[in-house]
Amino acid sequence: MESANDNSNLWRWGNTANAVHLSHFPKLKLFLENKFGAKLNADVKIPALKISPSRFSESEVKSIFPELKQNQISLKDEDRLRYTFGKSYYDVIKFITNQNFFSPDFVLFPETTEEISGILKQAVKNKIKIVTFAGGSNVVGAFDMDASSPMCVLNVQRLNKLVEIDNLSHTAEFEAGIFGPELEKILNDKNFTLGHFPQSFEFSTLGGWLALRSAGQESGLYGKIEDIVLQMKIITPSGIIEDIGFPRHACGPDFQHLFLGSEGTLGIIAQAKLRIHKKPEKYFWKIALFRNFENGSEALREIIQSGIHPAIARLSDAAETQVSSLIGHTEKGLMQKLIQSAMKSWLKSKGYTEPCVLMMRFAVRNESDYTAAKAAVQISEKYGAQKMPSSLAANWENSRFSLPYLRDTLVEHRVLIDTFETVTTWKNLTPIYHHIKNALKSNSDYFDKGGILLCHISHVYETGASLYFTLIAPQEKGKEIQQWQSLKKIVSDAIIKNGGAISHHHGIGKDHQNWYLQQINPETKKLLQAIKNHLDPENILNPGKLTDAQSK
Amino acid sequence: MESANDNSNLWRWGNTANAVHLSHFPKLKLFLENKFGAKLNADVKIPALKISPSRFSESEVKSIFPELKQNQISLKDEDRLRYTFGKSYYDVIKFITNQNFFSPDFVLFPETTEEISGILKQAVKNKIKIVTFAGGSNVVGAFDMDASSPMCVLNVQRLNKLVEIDNLSHTAEFEAGIFGPELEKILNDKNFTLGHFPQSFEFSTLGGWLALRSAGQESGLYGKIEDIVLQMKIITPSGIIEDIGFPRHACGPDFQHLFLGSEGTLGIIAQAKLRIHKKPEKYFWKIALFRNFENGSEALREIIQSGIHPAIARLSDAAETQVSSLIGHTEKGLMQKLIQSAMKSWLKSKGYTEPCVLMMRFAVRNESDYTAAKAAVQISEKYGAQKMPSSLAANWENSRFSLPYLRDTLVEHRVLIDTFETVTTWKNLTPIYHHIKNALKSNSDYFDKGGILLCHISHVYETGASLYFTLIAPQEKGKEIQQWQSLKKIVSDAIIKNGGAISHHHGIGKDHQNWYLQQINPETKKLLQAIKNHLDPENILNPGKLTDAQSK
Repeated sequence: MESANDNSNLWRWGNTANAVHLSHFPKLKLFLENKFGAKLNADVKIPALKISPSRFSESEVKSIFPELKQNQISLKDEDRLRYTFGKSYYDVIKFITNQNFFSPDFVLFPETTEEISGILKQAVKNKIKIVTFAGGSNVVGAFDMDASSPMCVLNVQRLNKLVEIDNLSHTAEFEAGIFGPELEKILNDKNFTLGHFPQSFEFSTLGGWLALRSAGQESGLYGKIEDIVLQMKIITPSGIIEDIGFPRHACGPDFQHLFLGSEGTLGIIAQAKLRIHKKPEKYFWKIALFRNFENGSEALREIIQSGIHPAIARLSDAAETQVSSLIGHTEKGLMQKLIQSAMKSWLKSKGYTEPCVLMMRFAVRNESDYTAAKAAVQISEKYGAQKMPSSLAANWENSRFSLPYLRDTLVEHRVLIDTFETVTTWKNLTPIYHHIKNALKSNSDYFDKGGILLCHISHVYETGASLYFTLIAPQEKGKEIQQWQSLKKIVSDAIIKNGGAISHHHGIGKDHQNWYLQQINPETKKLLQAIKNHLDPENILNPGKLTDAQSK
Repeated sequence: MESANDNSNLWRWGNTANAVHLSHFPKLKLFLENKFGAKLNADVKIPALKISPSRFSESEVKSIFPELKQNQISLKDEDRLRYTFGKSYYDVIKFITNQNFFSPDFVLFPETTEEISGILKQAVKNKIKIVTFAGGSNVVGAFDMDASSPMCVLNVQRLNKLVEIDNLSHTAEFEAGIFGPELEKILNDKNFTLGHFPQSFEFSTLGGWLALRSAGQESGLYGKIEDIVLQMKIITPSGIIEDIGFPRHACGPDFQHLFLGSEGTLGIIAQAKLRIHKKPEKYFWKIALFRNFENGSEALREIIQSGIHPAIARLSDAAETQVSSLIGHTEKGLMQKLIQSAMKSWLKSKGYTEPCVLMMRFAVRNESDYTAAKAAVQISEKYGAQKMPSSLAANWENSRFSLPYLRDTLVEHRVLIDTFETVTTWKNLTPIYHHIKNALKSNSDYFDKGGILLCHISHVYETGASLYFTLIAPQEKGKEIQQWQSLKKIVSDAIIKNGGAISHHHGIGKDHQNWYLQQINPETKKLLQAIKNHLDPENILNPGKLTDAQSK
């Protein structure tokens, strides 16, 4: 790997010790080279990043925030850079092309809610803008900053403790800066689980999940984060909001849903009470192949509408089914290869020329979970499903949280790889899938140049489902940013034109704001602005995000 | 029944043709007479109600709302009186004591959302306050008015059409003034159900359910109305709010939850898109007796926390179990009586001296619903449950929507009968149950005078459940209102002091406002006020409700 300067790894996903190299994925490499008609070489040079100097001195910052200790303030370039980027493809190319970013003047590390309140007071007084950072895994430019005002990043990772657990009522309250694995371990040790496993699980925090409305891979059973949270404590410039946290209630409006998805613009989420669940006795998989995406999608719809809730339900389209099978790390033995190729011919003979795999994982909490899985299989069979061995899930399970590492090595090989997602009704699900593909075809030479579009359904509701897409194409050297912006516009336009939400679980940030503002109703926009004016009258919180960018 | 004037039936529940008389419930009558130590006589005289004259003439109202037709405006006393009261015990005694109420100056009947917008504009211009009325079945003083301003009731019952149904995505959009039976019939005809059956089902509307956060008897499967709604169209004095209505999304804050429970103070709910469900193939009951309320509640907790979702789960305490068995209309045959008394002795011999009945109804959507019910029964047995014949449910099913009629005849016999409810965590559930009982014991002579307190759990969540109480006591003649106010204060104080919500599904209205304002956080209150100021700057909508009564 390249290492042009000390900060050269800051753009990478996760733990750099776990980084992978494309040479470990020979089948994938060959497949892409054939598609692109060119060899892939890791010839990206990471530049020495030019970071503008902080507009504050350390003593100035200390005098503004006298209650903070030495180790709670940083003006170091490395920290200012670390808290500049999220983890999207766009973030990566901003980094490696050394363009389109602005770093905060300093970083603060509060340790208590009182300290957060104090920081907000001083920030208002000193006209300093606050961008909240926790895991930093967002992929929508959620903490994109500009140079127009003094900028402070508030890193809330030190608020990371369990506050209280109620074994009987199945609730647990945590501080919001806690990372996924620590939170889950605390619960697992008491035989509970939160059941919230976004792909970013290892490097994202409770507060980030709430602020951007994240979804975990087991949303089929446990819901999205907005279904999981019961109560939040939110520090705003006008005071601390803590809504009542009953299992349900009829006590006036529920204010929680204002802060879910508020993306740091209305307040700092300091702690949250969550629904927790007994850790299921075990899990098991049901895997099936369908002749096409439509059949699989119909089956999934009928399954969920029959009251069956697989914890994970993931239907890949033909392209994703094919590419997934190329990601195995190791070469298979001869026998396995033979079995695999025999299966392929057999499937072809049965009309599965474009097979789409459906993986369903069921959690066992009582006997009825087995009966429900059986019923799900019966429904699948009605739509022509061919049963597959559940061992096929091992590949997915192994790479469950590690696919972003593959992204990094692909980028180093000058491959564009980005993801986007939406949600719509069942009626609109396969139509919008085709519209998005067609939009790429009609408005660009994406497919002609070897570009690949993969898709899966992975969050399923009675009324609709999400679609998650992966774009893979040869990167246009010297035009990395324009290439990405042009593709982003094509797919985002296609999404909102055809009745999809601009995001199901990534959020809005800077990257989706243009489409978000087209999508929401003008009066809703004014209402959001009125709420912002009340909670953050000096507009210090994540300025320019959600609605109020308009006024800039 | 008494009939002192033409309006004398307006206080009654539902369809007066279905009214019942206490003499049809001889066992109940005898039981109460023994408890109270006095004969019950229907000697209530309904007074001729004194209604203050409208402060408008018909031509004045017409000139203010020129776009409305003749039949969309009423200044008739009967209408003004009809839209003065809800259906609580307090409403009834306001009516029969001819005290503590104020009637609107006129009633309007809009037929379209455009007409609602027009009415709001004119109301702002003419400083007329608007109270929205649909079914009128609320039991918390939700449209309590005072004489300080011109008052208009907006009756939205003519907005009662199906807007759109999506068979594939299981959604249906209705205008908000539609009543339960019409809505459910439209869906049943297409083999769907909404699954929302509050006790007021026959006489309440979609808009009322949403504005007061109602819960249906089958909430275990279908959720409360806030779980059912996907999207709402809300007419406010500042414009029309229509939030995006995806199955889930990550597109910023969700504004829907601001209007759920807004009780007419923030806008008029004009239409709503709802999740609908295939009508289950069938239902079946599992009924069990427990030795005490604690055992039954523990069993219910374990059932729901094991991922089992009976559509109906209703655990009565010993007092309610006893009184319910007195409500059968007809005398039983000798054989049945013998069997019943044999069962009673057998139960007594097994230690079921204070038996508590748990009724669970399961909906069959697939085979797993049978397995789940079996698992629920196994869990119940761990807690000492004795299986009972499912035919016992017939009594409940027959009186499912008709118990309020019994209330009316009891009131005519000078019996106080009121209900209140709360929700709390499982940990706090039986403690708060005892605290409420003790509060009545310590702060009043309620039980000494023969007062009865019945309770059941009827809405069950993984983290907690609701408790629904019925108070029955001899009415204090001449002090009806003071008696009610004093009991209401005792139980409401006990609820919020002991960690319960002031309402799970009845709402706030005027009757719970004092406790609501103690319960919500001061910053939340300010936020609600800021939202109100933005949406309804002239404070024309249901003035004095939720927060802003403070300023009066």
